[in-house]
Parts: sequence; structure tokens; C-alpha cells
Amino acid sequence: MATVRLVEYEDASPEAREVYDDIMARKNIDWVPNIWKAMGSHPALLKDVWFSLQETMKPGRLDPLMKEMIAIAVSVTNGCEYCIHSHTAAARKLGLDDEMLGEVMAVTGAFNRTNALANGYHVEVDPPILEAALGKPKVEDAAD
Amino acid sequence: MATVRLVEYEDASPEAREVYDDIMARKNIDWVPNIWKAMGSHPALLKDVWFSLQETMKPGRLDPLMKEMIAIAVSVTNGCEYCIHSHTAAARKLGLDDEMLGEVMAVTGAFNRTNALANGYHVEVDPPILEAALGKPKVEDAAD
Amino acid sequence: MATVRLVEYEDASPEAREVYDDIMARKNIDWVPNIWKAMGSHPALLKDVWFSLQETMKPGRLDPLMKEMIAIAVSVTNGCEYCIHSHTAAARKLGLDDEMLGEVMAVTGAFNRTNALANGYHVEVDPPILEAALGKPKVEDAAD
Amino acid sequence: MATVRLVEYEDASPEAREVYDDIMARKNIDWVPNIWKAMGSHPALLKDVWFSLQETMKPGRLDPLMKEMIAIAVSVTNGCEYCIHSHTAAARKLGLDDEMLGEVMAVTGAFNRTNALANGYHVEVDPPILEAALGKPKVEDAAD
Amino acid sequence: MATVRLVEYEDASPEAREVYDDIMARKNIDWVPNIWKAMGSHPALLKDVWFSLQETMKPGRLDPLMKEMIAIAVSVTNGCEYCIHSHTAAARKLGLDDEMLGEVMAVTGAFNRTNALANGYHVEVDPPILEAALGKPKVEDAAD
Amino acid sequence: MATVRLVEYEDASPEAREVYDDIMARKNIDWVPNIWKAMGSHPALLKDVWFSLQETMKPGRLDPLMKEMIAIAVSVTNGCEYCIHSHTAAARKLGLDDEMLGEVMAVTGAFNRTNALANGYHVEVDPPILEAALGKPKVEDAAD
Repeated sequence: MATVRLVEYEDASPEAREVYDDIMARKNIDWVPNIWKAMGSHPALLKDVWFSLQETMKPGRLDPLMKEMIAIAVSVTNGCEYCIHSHTAAARKLGLDDEMLGEVMAVTGAFNRTNALANGYHVEVDPPILEAALGKPKVEDAAD
Repeated sequence: MATVRLVEYEDASPEAREVYDDIMARKNIDWVPNIWKAMGSHPALLKDVWFSLQETMKPGRLDPLMKEMIAIAVSVTNGCEYCIHSHTAAARKLGLDDEMLGEVMAVTGAFNRTNALANGYHVEVDPPILEAALGKPKVEDAAD
Repeated sequence: MATVRLVEYEDASPEAREVYDDIMARKNIDWVPNIWKAMGSHPALLKDVWFSLQETMKPGRLDPLMKEMIAIAVSVTNGCEYCIHSHTAAARKLGLDDEMLGEVMAVTGAFNRTNALANGYHVEVDPPILEAALGKPKVEDAAD
Repeated sequence: MATVRLVEYEDASPEAREVYDDIMARKNIDWVPNIWKAMGSHPALLKDVWFSLQETMKPGRLDPLMKEMIAIAVSVTNGCEYCIHSHTAAARKLGLDDEMLGEVMAVTGAFNRTNALANGYHVEVDPPILEAALGKPKVEDAAD
Repeated sequence: MATVRLVEYEDASPEAREVYDDIMARKNIDWVPNIWKAMGSHPALLKDVWFSLQETMKPGRLDPLMKEMIAIAVSVTNGCEYCIHSHTAAARKLGLDDEMLGEVMAVTGAFNRTNALANGYHVEVDPPILEAALGKPKVEDAAD
Repeated sequence: MATVRLVEYEDASPEAREVYDDIMARKNIDWVPNIWKAMGSHPALLKDVWFSLQETMKPGRLDPLMKEMIAIAVSVTNGCEYCIHSHTAAARKLGLDDEMLGEVMAVTGAFNRTNALANGYHVEVDPPILEAALGKPKVEDAAD
């Protein structure tokens, strides 16, 4: 059970209602998911999280399915039930099938294991790895 | 400082040495990263983790860069310093640039935020999300 | 479902019963919450946790509501369902309303995001921040 | 070592530089902290995180020191080194002394312990706690 | 509700069915636990995780009950509901009673607390502790 | 660098000094580890944590080495650098060698992986597992 009364569309403040409208329009649904109705109790938070998320999730160098798969990996690592379901649902709408989900899970599981091992043996990062992680300066910088 | 003496190639057991050889061959390097030298102190673990990882990371429905980006997201969420560096390094070799890394970080950050919000307000998963997350049975099953 | 049979008041050992009595008296309730009944199966743990918590939560430089808001932030970050509910309930009794809860959630969410970003880019702590974090020696020390 | 080359003010894009200017103005410092220079490599992220944070941290029902203490609790629970230092530094500027920090740590530590116990015994949330956590509807709603 | 349709024995691929048979034989049960039926949707994962786990859990220097108690501690720290129940169940079959579980919980709780304190005060590891953690080289190495 | 000035023995309050003396006596060392010197800045916390820990770690149904191995597993899962070193050091003094540490790491790693898989596929706990986890009532209760 939630820790706030969910704010239904008809009870929402004009500020919250504007976000609800945008959520339904962009997701092409005629209902507001519970997580957003919970944030409806604090419209400033609702607005900030929703619009920040649009900025983050818009197509860029990574496509939307790729971004949703990362969202699944993060939510699984944090054990967030609501988020695991909502991002798996979003990814499925973008084409994720059981085999792809299996690969996401395999990779997520594998690195939760190796993260523990690297933390536990507490080895220092090898200098060639540090250097390779840093990458090259951007082309325009390199041209200086 | 590590919690075991790293096992150098010349001190390694034949079982560990075989894995070290495979690591250097597949990564095309002539040195063994510290994490594997730490596991060299317990060859059964070294062997199991290395070969399981090859199974997990081989190209499938997700390509290797995609898998490394998920590895970054998991390692960031767990705060594993060694892993963040080693997977960022691996991803950079596969073409990750600062802009793509920026998108991986943006998505990873965003969902660490919304995971906290969904946990904190503790809303129930909306039934249409539960249903969409589950996906469709596979075609061959559906044909029964 | 719990992983131990909850120990009811009438089945509790004298040692556990003494703690149950103190719990009910201090919380001004006539029932024992489940978490304490679970610990009733191991009275030494029950006693240690309960009395340590009284020490921690007594009014000090931070008032009880402030302490409960920190408890919410910790429980949300760990995703502990029981704890999120029990600390939100405790905070509400001390005056937390939806707007204050919204601010606690906003701050908790925001720093789960920036924690991921700082871990992921793995930047070094700026020396002026290190120095400012350390604070000043206490007055009596400074007087030496 | 960071996983991106930090973007100095003189190398920053106009979009990033505008955020850098705002950071220095609001913090009243003449240098840009490393975390923001790292995000300078992806200006859209820099801009989104910085302005979202201003929205979150502005004085509301909770005062700035209170918000920074919650930030410490979250960062400690996640084990984020950079964040622990930067939020402790920020809180000290707002008046946090060793005794108050001790109370923040005591509360953060205590609930990391009880979170584990509640998760581990996996007890159900008591119905009166669920009800109390939910709180009352807001006055204006109740007036309907 | 799961995020994949669980794959029942009669619908499983020959590769998955072989693992299911091994699970039932080794656990001496005539049904397949849900976690393995979920992985049945991606047989390569099912096979890798199951056989890797047999390698890890076989009696060694630590006996099976000891290994299951560590499994409980990890699952509690991660807050994994399924895992807490399945490892507590496994440990109970190996002789864990409420008092032993109480000690596992007490230790797990205590170090979740002190982990937070050590992270939060961010003290450096004392050199004698670093040295003691590293241990001695193995006898055969020392003989060189 | 720590976030408080470590309180040396000669600067400690009488209350803190009493705990320092007990730490050195029980650990049979003539210096105070950094984590306790940090808590020396808030003697009530120092005292509560130290004496609670003695209660938790005293020999019971689990022996001290077993308890330290669980402490390692928890600290590894949380990624606490100070704690990983201090508990590995403590376990080594009690006889932990590289092979045993390898087994602790293998088990800790394995269940960080399966925790992610169980969370990610979000399967329901099988009823026979729920029942087995709960265990039997204690003999004296059963005799009622």
C-alpha cells in the first residue's frame, strides 16, 4: 500500500493535471500510472521528474530500447519491484522478447557477481585499464 | 590494497595458468588484469567465473557494446570502482565516446532516482503494466 | 510470510516480555509490531536492538521528526518495505504531511541520482571539499 | 581517476559554461567542482541535473541543512565517497558540527541495521502501520 | 507477478529439461522452483547458473550449512525476497534453528550498521589492518 | 580523508577513553583503529556501537570465524572498503586462509548474481519454500 493517497486526475492541481495530460499523450494511454499519481501529491516533484525523464529518454546515440534495457538493469540491481515491471513492460512494447530479456538478465546477473568479487578482493585498478577508461579527448580538442 | 596476494603467471597452478592464457588470448593483451590474478588464489573460482562470463558476453541478440553498457550501469549502481573502470575501458574499445557514455550515465542516474521514488511512495504495480511486462508466450508455444 | 514464527506476548520469554512491555509503553500502543515479535525468537537480539534504538532516537541536537525523516531516506535507499511504512507512519504522527514527505522523497531521489553520477564518472574529491568536510576541531581542542 | 577528461571552463561549450557560471555564482566559489566538470562532457546532462537540483534543494518545508543531512544519509547508505564528502562539506557550511554529524551517523547506521533485520525476517507490515503511513487526505480534499 | 511466463517441464526445451531433471534429482523434490522455470525461458542462462552454482556450493573448506548462512546474509543485505526465503529454507533443512538464524540476523544487521558508519566517516584503513587482511603467502610459495 | 578529526586517546573524553581501553584490551593491541577514533567524536555512538557489537560477536551457536565470514560477505555486498579489510584481517587471525576466503567470495559472488536474477524475473516464492523457511515451532512451544 502506498504511503500517500494517490491523486486522481479530477483531484489534481492544475500544475499536476498538465503533467498527467502530457504523460497520457506521450505514452498513448488514457490512464495515469500509480507512480505519477503518487507524485501528484507534490506537483513540483512530479513536474521536475517527468520533464527531466523526457530529456533523458529522448532518442540520442542510444535508441529507446537500449535505454529501457539499461533501466531494467538498474532496477534489477536496486531490486525495485515497480520499476522492474514498468521498464520490462516498456521494453517489451519496443520489441524485447524473452531471449533478449534473458541476455539482459544474464549480463546484469554476471556483473552483480563480478562486482562483488572485485570489491571483495579489493584489487587496484590496473593502470592500462585506467588509461583506456579515460578515453581520448574529443576531436575538436585534439585539433588544438 | 588487495585482500590476497595476487598470483602471478609464474606462480600460478596449471589450472589457473590455463585460464590466464585464455584471458590474454581473448583480450589480446600480454598481461593478466588484477581481478583475475586475485582469483588465481582459488583456481576453481577463477575458472568458473571466467568461462561463465564468456558464455554471457558472447554476441547474441545484444551486441558486445550493448552488453558492456549494461555492465557499466550495473557497476555504477553498485559503486564498484574496479568494475566501472574496466567496463568503461572495454566499452571504449568497442566505440563508446563521451556522448554515449553521457547517455549511459544519464539513464543510469535517472533510474536510480525513480527507483528511490517508486520504493519510497511504495505504489502498487498497475495491472496493465504487470500484464505488459509478462509479454506474450513464444510463437511455438502459441501454436500448440 | 516471515521466516520465523512470530513470538506472541503470551509465548514470550520473560526477557522478551520485558522488552515488549517497554515497546508498548513508549509507543503508547497495546500491541507489539511484527518486527519485534520476529526478534522475540532471539531475545538477546531483541533486547540489544530495542535499547540501542532508544539511545539513538532520543531527542538530541536533531529532533525526533528530523530523525524519522532520515530513517525514511535510508529505508527508501535500501528499498525496505516494512521500514518505509513504519518510519513514514512514525513521521506522520510527528507532523509529516504530504508536502514534507514530497520534499524528503525529492531529496532522497535526487541524491540517489547524483550518487550514481559521481560513482560512474569516478571523479576525485576536490581538495577544498575534503577540507571543508573535515570541519574545525572542537573548541576545547582548539584551546590547547 | 575519472572515466572522462574533465572539461575545464575554457574548453566548455557555451551551454556548459552557462551552467558553470551559475554553479560558481550560487555556491559563491571561483572554481568548478569535479563532478560538474565531468558532466561538462555531456552538456544536456549537466544542465538537467544542475537545474533539477536547484528545484529540489531550494528552501521549502525543510530547511537547507535538513536537506543536506538527508543527502548525507543517502550518500552513506550508497557508499558514494565523492558525495559523502561534498554533502558533509555543504552541511558544515550550514552549521553542522561533530555532535550533529554523530547523530546523523547514528540514525543512518541504526536504520541500515534494522532495514536488514526487517528484510531478513521478512515480516508483514502491521495493518495499523500501513494505515498510519498513508496519512490523512489533504484538508482541501477532505472539504469536498 | 513474474516478468516472463514460467516454462513448465512439459514445455521446456530438451536443454532446459536436462537441467530441470538435475535440479529435481539433487534437491530430491518432484517439482521445479519458480526461479528455475523463469530461467527456462533462456536455457543458456539456466544451464550456466545452475552448473556454476553446483561448483560453488559443493562441500569444501566450508560446509553446506555455513555456505547457506552466507547466502542468507547476502540476500538480506540485498533485500531479495525470493532468495531470503529459499536460502532460509535450505539452511533449515541443514539444521538451522531460530537461535542460529537469530545469530545470522544479528551479525548481518550489525555489519550493515558498521558498514554505514565506516563509509560515512570515511576513515582510512589502518596500515596494520591492511597488512593483516592480506595474509601470508601460501606455504609452497614461502618455501621458494 | 575522514569527515571528522579522529579523536586520539589523549584528547578523548573519559567516556570515550573507557571504550578505547576496552577495545585495546579485547583486541590485544596497543592502538585504536581509525573507525573507533572517528566515533570518539560522538561518545554516545562509540559506546553504543562497541558494546552492541560485543553482544553480537560473542561465541554462541556460530563460532567467531563463522561470524567474521558473514561480516565479510555483508561488507563485500555493500562495497565497504574499510570493513572488507578489517573483517578479512579479523578472519585471518582466526584461521582463514586463501582457499577459505575463495569459498566465501565464491558464495558471496554467486548469490549476488542469483539475487539479481530472482529480483529481475520477479518470480513468486514457491509455497513449499515459504513453508520450509518458516521452520518448526520450538520444542517447548510444540509441547503445549
